[in-house]
Amino acid sequence: MNINEEAIKLHRKLNGKIEIKLKEAIDSPEKLSLLYSPGVAQPCLEIAEDPQKAYEYTFKKNTILIVSDGSAVLGLGNIKGLASLPVMEGKAALFKQFGDVNCLPIVLDTQDTEEIITTIKNIAIGFGGINLEDISTPRCFEIEKRLDEMLDIPVFHDDQHGTAIVCCAGLINALKVVDKKINEVEIVINGLGSAGIAITKLLVNYGFKNFSLCDINGLLYQGTLMEHDLDNLVDFINEKKQLPGLPLQEVLKDKDVFIGVSAANLIDDKVAKSMNKDAIIFAMANPNPEISFENAQKAGVKILATGRSDYPNQINNVLVFPGIFKGTLAVQAQSINTQMKIAAVNALASIIKDEELKADYIIPSPFDKRVVDTISQAVQVAAIKSNINKI
Amino acid sequence: MNINEEAIKLHRKLNGKIEIKLKEAIDSPEKLSLLYSPGVAQPCLEIAEDPQKAYEYTFKKNTILIVSDGSAVLGLGNIKGLASLPVMEGKAALFKQFGDVNCLPIVLDTQDTEEIITTIKNIAIGFGGINLEDISTPRCFEIEKRLDEMLDIPVFHDDQHGTAIVCCAGLINALKVVDKKINEVEIVINGLGSAGIAITKLLVNYGFKNFSLCDINGLLYQGTLMEHDLDNLVDFINEKKQLPGLPLQEVLKDKDVFIGVSAANLIDDKVAKSMNKDAIIFAMANPNPEISFENAQKAGVKILATGRSDYPNQINNVLVFPGIFKGTLAVQAQSINTQMKIAAVNALASIIKDEELKADYIIPSPFDKRVVDTISQAVQVAAIKSNINKI
Repeated sequence: MNINEEAIKLHRKLNGKIEIKLKEAIDSPEKLSLLYSPGVAQPCLEIAEDPQKAYEYTFKKNTILIVSDGSAVLGLGNIKGLASLPVMEGKAALFKQFGDVNCLPIVLDTQDTEEIITTIKNIAIGFGGINLEDISTPRCFEIEKRLDEMLDIPVFHDDQHGTAIVCCAGLINALKVVDKKINEVEIVINGLGSAGIAITKLLVNYGFKNFSLCDINGLLYQGTLMEHDLDNLVDFINEKKQLPGLPLQEVLKDKDVFIGVSAANLIDDKVAKSMNKDAIIFAMANPNPEISFENAQKAGVKILATGRSDYPNQINNVLVFPGIFKGTLAVQAQSINTQMKIAAVNALASIIKDEELKADYIIPSPFDKRVVDTISQAVQVAAIKSNINKI
Repeated sequence: MNINEEAIKLHRKLNGKIEIKLKEAIDSPEKLSLLYSPGVAQPCLEIAEDPQKAYEYTFKKNTILIVSDGSAVLGLGNIKGLASLPVMEGKAALFKQFGDVNCLPIVLDTQDTEEIITTIKNIAIGFGGINLEDISTPRCFEIEKRLDEMLDIPVFHDDQHGTAIVCCAGLINALKVVDKKINEVEIVINGLGSAGIAITKLLVNYGFKNFSLCDINGLLYQGTLMEHDLDNLVDFINEKKQLPGLPLQEVLKDKDVFIGVSAANLIDDKVAKSMNKDAIIFAMANPNPEISFENAQKAGVKILATGRSDYPNQINNVLVFPGIFKGTLAVQAQSINTQMKIAAVNALASIIKDEELKADYIIPSPFDKRVVDTISQAVQVAAIKSNINKI
């Protein structure tokens, strides 16, 4: 049985990956009176007086919403809300499994930006946070920004920031292995979807300085940067003043780092070989990376990271979203700001000690028990320092 | 410690009555591959091709949404969405405890009818049904009607129909005890909120024929009936041609049945005594009924039912909503129609055998294990007979 058949079989058997569990059974008239009518009236009245008490008497303290309109699902494209439900249920399961965060999945039957914003605004109040998922560019930016401004709970588009945080943590560790400096390495990023843009922004915020950004039309020029809300990064981009439109394969020559969030098999071993010594490639296209494992080895690429679990160095968002929301909820942060994202980067990178780092071990496994709490703690501290926590 | 203090203590301890549980742990890279990326892509693609497959691969088969805007919560009035969350979580807990139905609670931050309809429409697609809760009249009627027409899953306002079904089942059994006939008894209903109107409609559909409807202004007249969308019931109302505005206390004279969904202590023992022999009173105001237990006894009322668990004959919606949704989900009914409601009435009434029926045992306990499946089975049969099942 191949993986598709096995996955279908398991999905059919489970009929949903998650279910509801009572924290305390309602198995007597006394329990019914306390947890439902008439006892429930008192917490209701207190919350009506003081909304903050919802964090004491309800699941708001430890429950978030995951929302998708199914417009950009994994490598599947726009399959609409309903068809994205297996992913959202899966993500809710991962939130619980890894972070003990409760997460209710909602898939939308609209792809209209204004309707999405109004709908999420209308249903957000019972939750401690919102995880946006698999919403296509450019409206994912608008939706996240407006909702985050509107609501006093964090709104986090994981495809952007989760990916960016794991990628940045992995890159920091990779640079330690090859002994290169953050402010010196030249980075090529290919693919300016939500992940590519978020990665660029976070790396700039972290202190990286030299970028060449490419998409399907080759090296970008300034006009394109502005379209992507990247115009404030202009100082850091294309320092070598290479020609706009130059193909990715040529842009990569003499560069240190290639980050691909684009498509399968874009470069071969010759192109990889044209990069600087001790080249680092994060080839994150799923399921097939921008360069095959074999070609990367053949080219002598020093460090390869991919999105796949069957190769070393898996760049997987599950390393971040459970911990970042666990920490955010713990202090009731009203947003997840850049400082908190950078704290998550450093926490994740720190899990592997310098002496343990090596070319095929720059990022911990999602099953490493230290990951979630290390990130959660760091995020809490950063939230408190930047004074956006409610408690 | 009184019940309010105890309820607060328990709510604070639990911090939410429900949480998420994984049906299968994701504790290995293999499970991660099958239940998340890359395995999850295959069920997604199949659902994109055929939306009906969502019932096979996701929780849609056995999960409903409970939604409230908090505009008419228990006896608390309009406390807004957030403050109603303890009730909605409690209801979700009851759905799971009694019916093994998974239910996600959503509270709304809007009380605008059109926004509520659009919001629920936009988030409904991942669910097998919608339970509307604690939404005030008259917009609860409009919201339910329009959503039920719009969506191919059932939309059920429990405050209306749940109450009506339990009330009707109890009344049928009560009439057996006093040996009176459905089409002969004269019924007074006081309180024309969502429950009062739904009770009236269901009793008419069931075959009851003689009604006097009252509200705070006394006996209603035709104009008021039409305002309440009850104009098609005009033939069954006020056959004695009593004067509109006649106070409830006088309307009750020589009547057989009083159903109160109104306010505490409206009638005393003298008024109760003015009713016909073997009077039946369903005094469902919460927490204090329309007549006290003591006054009803003093007046020789034959059968008293209330909303309270500390007296006999508790009229409690939890007798109905778990079973009715369990049955509805089992056959993927697209709506919950009158036939299904009547099937639920008969199923609930049938649980107590005729020879077991007595004045203080006309309705089973919510903890009677037979209730849910008896109702579920009957509802499935009725749905199939009226051909609104998808499977």
